[in-house]
Amino acid sequence: MTTATNLVEALANPSAGEVEQLDAWWRANNYLTVGQIYLKANPLLREPLTAEHIKPRLLGHWGTSPGLSLIYAHVSRLIRHTGQQAIYLAGPGHGGPALVAAGYLEGTYSEVYPHVSRDEPGMLRLFRQFSSPGGIPSHVSVTTPGSIHEGGELGYVLVHAFGAVMDNPDLLAVAVVGDGEAETGPLEGSWKGVSFLNPARDGAVLPILHLNGAKIAGPTVLARKDPAEVRSLLQGHGYDLIEVEGADLPGMHYRFAAALAQAWGRIRDIQQTARGDGWDGSRPRWPLIVLRSPKGWTGPEQVDGVQVTGSWRSHQVPLSGVRDNPDHLAILERWLRSYRPQELFDEAGAPSALVAGLAPDGDLRMSASPHANGGLLTRPLDLPDFRKYAVDVPQPAQLPAESTRRLGEMLRDVYAGNPDRFRLFCPDETNSNRLGAVFEVSDRAFMEKVTPDDVAISRDGRVMEVLSEHNCHGWLEGYTLTGRHGMFATYEAFAMVSASQTVQHGKWLQEAGHLPWRARVPSLNILLTSTAWRNDHNGFSHQGPGLIQIVLTQRGDIARVYLPPDANTLLSVADHCLRSRSYINLIVIDKQPQPQWLTMDEAVAHCARGAGIWQWAGTDDGSSDPDIVLACAGDIVTMETVAAAQILKQRLPQMRVRVVNVVDLMTLPRPKDHPHGMSPTLFTELFTDTVDVVFAFHGYPGAIHQLVHGRPDADRFRVRGFVEEGTTTTPFDMTVRNRTSRYHLVMDAINNAKRLPRGATELKAWCERKLAEHEAYIVEHLEDMPEVRDWTLTAR
Amino acid sequence: MTTATNLVEALANPSAGEVEQLDAWWRANNYLTVGQIYLKANPLLREPLTAEHIKPRLLGHWGTSPGLSLIYAHVSRLIRHTGQQAIYLAGPGHGGPALVAAGYLEGTYSEVYPHVSRDEPGMLRLFRQFSSPGGIPSHVSVTTPGSIHEGGELGYVLVHAFGAVMDNPDLLAVAVVGDGEAETGPLEGSWKGVSFLNPARDGAVLPILHLNGAKIAGPTVLARKDPAEVRSLLQGHGYDLIEVEGADLPGMHYRFAAALAQAWGRIRDIQQTARGDGWDGSRPRWPLIVLRSPKGWTGPEQVDGVQVTGSWRSHQVPLSGVRDNPDHLAILERWLRSYRPQELFDEAGAPSALVAGLAPDGDLRMSASPHANGGLLTRPLDLPDFRKYAVDVPQPAQLPAESTRRLGEMLRDVYAGNPDRFRLFCPDETNSNRLGAVFEVSDRAFMEKVTPDDVAISRDGRVMEVLSEHNCHGWLEGYTLTGRHGMFATYEAFAMVSASQTVQHGKWLQEAGHLPWRARVPSLNILLTSTAWRNDHNGFSHQGPGLIQIVLTQRGDIARVYLPPDANTLLSVADHCLRSRSYINLIVIDKQPQPQWLTMDEAVAHCARGAGIWQWAGTDDGSSDPDIVLACAGDIVTMETVAAAQILKQRLPQMRVRVVNVVDLMTLPRPKDHPHGMSPTLFTELFTDTVDVVFAFHGYPGAIHQLVHGRPDADRFRVRGFVEEGTTTTPFDMTVRNRTSRYHLVMDAINNAKRLPRGATELKAWCERKLAEHEAYIVEHLEDMPEVRDWTLTAR
Repeated sequence: MTTATNLVEALANPSAGEVEQLDAWWRANNYLTVGQIYLKANPLLREPLTAEHIKPRLLGHWGTSPGLSLIYAHVSRLIRHTGQQAIYLAGPGHGGPALVAAGYLEGTYSEVYPHVSRDEPGMLRLFRQFSSPGGIPSHVSVTTPGSIHEGGELGYVLVHAFGAVMDNPDLLAVAVVGDGEAETGPLEGSWKGVSFLNPARDGAVLPILHLNGAKIAGPTVLARKDPAEVRSLLQGHGYDLIEVEGADLPGMHYRFAAALAQAWGRIRDIQQTARGDGWDGSRPRWPLIVLRSPKGWTGPEQVDGVQVTGSWRSHQVPLSGVRDNPDHLAILERWLRSYRPQELFDEAGAPSALVAGLAPDGDLRMSASPHANGGLLTRPLDLPDFRKYAVDVPQPAQLPAESTRRLGEMLRDVYAGNPDRFRLFCPDETNSNRLGAVFEVSDRAFMEKVTPDDVAISRDGRVMEVLSEHNCHGWLEGYTLTGRHGMFATYEAFAMVSASQTVQHGKWLQEAGHLPWRARVPSLNILLTSTAWRNDHNGFSHQGPGLIQIVLTQRGDIARVYLPPDANTLLSVADHCLRSRSYINLIVIDKQPQPQWLTMDEAVAHCARGAGIWQWAGTDDGSSDPDIVLACAGDIVTMETVAAAQILKQRLPQMRVRVVNVVDLMTLPRPKDHPHGMSPTLFTELFTDTVDVVFAFHGYPGAIHQLVHGRPDADRFRVRGFVEEGTTTTPFDMTVRNRTSRYHLVMDAINNAKRLPRGATELKAWCERKLAEHEAYIVEHLEDMPEVRDWTLTAR
Repeated sequence: MTTATNLVEALANPSAGEVEQLDAWWRANNYLTVGQIYLKANPLLREPLTAEHIKPRLLGHWGTSPGLSLIYAHVSRLIRHTGQQAIYLAGPGHGGPALVAAGYLEGTYSEVYPHVSRDEPGMLRLFRQFSSPGGIPSHVSVTTPGSIHEGGELGYVLVHAFGAVMDNPDLLAVAVVGDGEAETGPLEGSWKGVSFLNPARDGAVLPILHLNGAKIAGPTVLARKDPAEVRSLLQGHGYDLIEVEGADLPGMHYRFAAALAQAWGRIRDIQQTARGDGWDGSRPRWPLIVLRSPKGWTGPEQVDGVQVTGSWRSHQVPLSGVRDNPDHLAILERWLRSYRPQELFDEAGAPSALVAGLAPDGDLRMSASPHANGGLLTRPLDLPDFRKYAVDVPQPAQLPAESTRRLGEMLRDVYAGNPDRFRLFCPDETNSNRLGAVFEVSDRAFMEKVTPDDVAISRDGRVMEVLSEHNCHGWLEGYTLTGRHGMFATYEAFAMVSASQTVQHGKWLQEAGHLPWRARVPSLNILLTSTAWRNDHNGFSHQGPGLIQIVLTQRGDIARVYLPPDANTLLSVADHCLRSRSYINLIVIDKQPQPQWLTMDEAVAHCARGAGIWQWAGTDDGSSDPDIVLACAGDIVTMETVAAAQILKQRLPQMRVRVVNVVDLMTLPRPKDHPHGMSPTLFTELFTDTVDVVFAFHGYPGAIHQLVHGRPDADRFRVRGFVEEGTTTTPFDMTVRNRTSRYHLVMDAINNAKRLPRGATELKAWCERKLAEHEAYIVEHLEDMPEVRDWTLTAR
């Protein structure tokens, strides 16, 4: 303890030499940042600066960068003193050049990208590649070593940080929150991560709220609020505040070093207490640093008579006229030389010994942390045999079952078998979604007060429930990007709340796939249940299959959409997804009791193909083209399709009807449009080349139209699906309102069949009568539908 | 002042008779709530309750309802004492029956729905319609008189409330925040509305944080945090707390009345100060009530030996077995009779005089407030003639201009002409989006500290900038639903952040269209600028046209998507949108300098048709079908399309090329799929029936495939568009990466043309060479593209 206390003491009081080193590293970083924004030649300023040295197009964000690099320098020193494993998340990720420069100064950048060497030619490449076509993006991105967080779309730095440290007891995630980002809803909703973080089992997040005063075009709320209110707000979120303010040097180095030492000491105390015997289990007050330093600090104070430093004017490129305006050029040269590059880089252009010496060793460098390249640390899940959760299906549709309940049993055993690397994330709906079996082996995580009446909730729980899709999604992203596995289960409609996170994470995974040094990470598995079709009890706001539409816009490298129609197909799909890497896997299935169609062996075969003919459901003997194909993707519409086929079989037996079920939606596009796209031969085997297809789809009909584009005579696909008709009603009425009921499908089949057997007109009239009866039934305000209660199929 | 103080005094100290009335109204509301959930017969309990009286399917949410009705009762009393105009927003909107019951007790419900009369048959209809097919949804919804907020997707109650009171100085929005909702990101990000609310000019929001302890399946963070932390948090957000806790009666009535009186008095003081002479301009500390009362209060305490009241078990239907379990049935009957219905309703079944007497008069009843049916109060905008902002276009593409800058000038004059009913909402990007002319007539709104260096920001400003798409979108919703006009301008990619709000607001507008008593409100206008194609400087995270995809899933009754290719078409479209009612209008155009194509007269005609042939751009003389149609929708792809046509004209003059530009995307579907869908005749006139169409689209290609489905030979549409290829690069490189450049379009045209003139193969080879040159150019790390700089077109 004394040694540890001495360590904090030493950390808090850097020697003059240490401050000199910190400042040199910081100046080197700032120099490289400005160089990346402006220079295409003369990287070490060996000659006087001229317009020819300046890039023709000036891109990048200066304002936040000096703050980001100051923090980086000090955390690096902390790591060298303590051996702490740490990663760095830059909320203001548009400060990309600062983080790129950090990796470069630490040597990691040149290890990953050898052509960007630690010498003058390498430095020039570093500058020229920045924000250049064929180079690197202007934001912290997947190309930045050490990053798991882009910070382009603001709001997620804390959720990523919390996700990263769950089940990662030795990791510290330093998360810089910009005061612009701090205005977003997702960020404000993410401070509460501490209410779910167990200091005994999880690592620590150190948020650093960097109040530099302004965003793109004006001041921020937190920067201009009474500081006492800011203090009250963050204390209310559960943090212990440590505040550092100023722009004086070297004073700020001393004060920030002391603040960081204090924060780290507090974290160490919290963890030691929690990991010892004497912990009372209460939620600790984690430290949080508020750093108030000027935006664009160390840059030009004023330009053309107006204030730049400390103002929104320094957000991007504070001097925009350098190629044409000699005054601006002179200011830029003074600015660059103010960092005294000759002290920072040696003759060859490599960082000087003083600068390079700040970096921790090897993997302890934050830019080299394997936690930030989580695929390196990924251990496959120890998965149970999914077949053992199978529903027994002697005949199709004989016994209804809640499919997701079987998945819950499987997930229970995944939890049990992987206590250090699997978590389920769900907005308060684990039980509602019938996944509650997981509570047999793990409680919900909760660090606030628990009462004796509570059920399955404790500080030791590892099921993550918080009424925030943003938190759930973001935590899972942080968890998987650091190499662990999980699933986000949510109401289908409210998956749209975090749709932009699905989009952004997809972009990350897509780009990561192009970088050989990035190891593949576990997939982001999203289970959509409580679907549009069965939110009959909650009404229209809960009815929307929009996320499918979003995932369809993502590239085939990463996007997968599965619509298992029953429990056994769900289990097979889930097993596949939990083994996969670097995908967005969307699985859509409802939680209510539903008919079960396939034995486990059949399900496995069906999922392996992704789509297939259900011969038992139709009247097509396969000898030639049928009169009509009834296709379906999604559980409820599969039920309606099989029912429609059954009606046709009974009442129009001469008609040859083929039933095709699609589990893997991405088998529909052409192979050149998606790697899962089925071959032309298989497509023709299922759908023929000329017979009309009545396709009942779980989501919006347009999705199928876009997927089958380019397939033979794609116009023959007549798609029924969710068309935004909903309310609180009966399950069957949902299919009627959206014109996807069995009766609609029968009429569609008759209207589009190649041959029309005798009796077809009568059958259409019968369907119309059935729908009219349904309408009458609804008008009479009855509350449950016999079509659902009495659902049976005769036989295979 | 003395009178006013006496008023607060009187409010704070209700007489015994007043408490009796409050309690009677509350009991009546709770009775009607339980009745809606359970009863299909015997509404007044004139007979002993039997299983036959119970609905077959029990739906609805009891837990939050008694808290919602208690607050409603007390606000009603406040209105009767003070004449305050108020609306009520139920964050826990799933407590629908309580708000429906409130409207019924106030008489509004029967005025709007005469068949639900204030007598026994009407009460029975009230019960039977609830959550029934053909009846009303289980949540507070558009069918609920007095509501502008559904509360199905949680998180938006405060943004709606703040939007409602902007420029509405006499309105009080009482916003109940559930403690479940309080966990969401959007809600946590919306407390800061007070930093933008001017007490002199705007009305007041009174948030009531209702901590009843639990959500669906477990406790909430705020309910279990140390109350001192909750206090600190909300004070940090800038509020003065008033706390009420308990379940004792009538004590809670006295204490809540006192709390409400104190809050109202404080609001009145704030407004009087701000509206007098002595205000120092500082942000007031607005009151906020924290109400801690048990979930399911007054319901069955325990059922089957487990605690129900105060626990998550009372969230929905606390007694689920009433039809089969006599014990449950008996508990239900005791519960219902505990409200003593015979005292609350008269012989005919109407509310007793005591109960009915609590309601304020006429429009002051919150269920009848015209502010909550904002179309009633809507005054059309006083719009300038949009033609006066026209860009002069002597010839197409001669002079580039920033199109949105012209729109900014128009919006400036819309602001000036409508100082009480128009606002622009934008996440800190008004200037960046070139709309900064509005600052000539209005500052940004800001109630926190402003410094002398700040520009265009003050407490009197009415341009709403906050770095939160959720706040911007939600404020605009609240503003338009209360009858005023506005626009939300945002970066295209980050429109996905609030996509779920677009979805949910669309559902609201769609449903409202079915209710004759709901007056049409101003449309929700969303301007997407800084688009995917021109975020070349910000990189991949800023490149995503996803919101179009979402709006396409909405119904034709409400969804509109416009892609004006230049300034004059933008002005025409904007004028149309600002005059429209009850739509989601999505307008997509970039902010960068871009070629201008049409004179104002041509633009108006083009927008009126929605799509048309640009004869000057092609080589099609209209005498017969062309060899190929080059179609385009979106500014950048229009530029590439016209350039492709120009290349073909110059190098392959024999080929007959038709150029079709689409402004109104919804002209593409069939008229039966969207009311804007063009007639088959017009479609054939533009696109022929058989000639292949190379379609360059701003968004994801699949969108066009789904829109043209069902048109003649839809398979002939070859669509190019954004295919998720992006990074920091040049603008032209973005089109190359996404294979939508002029060279790709020329090759597509050649590959799909009806006739192939001599020279076509050479031209394809030339295009390949141009693309190879581009690749080489990129590899050399040059930073700007001559194709963009040197963009010209020869002549008309």
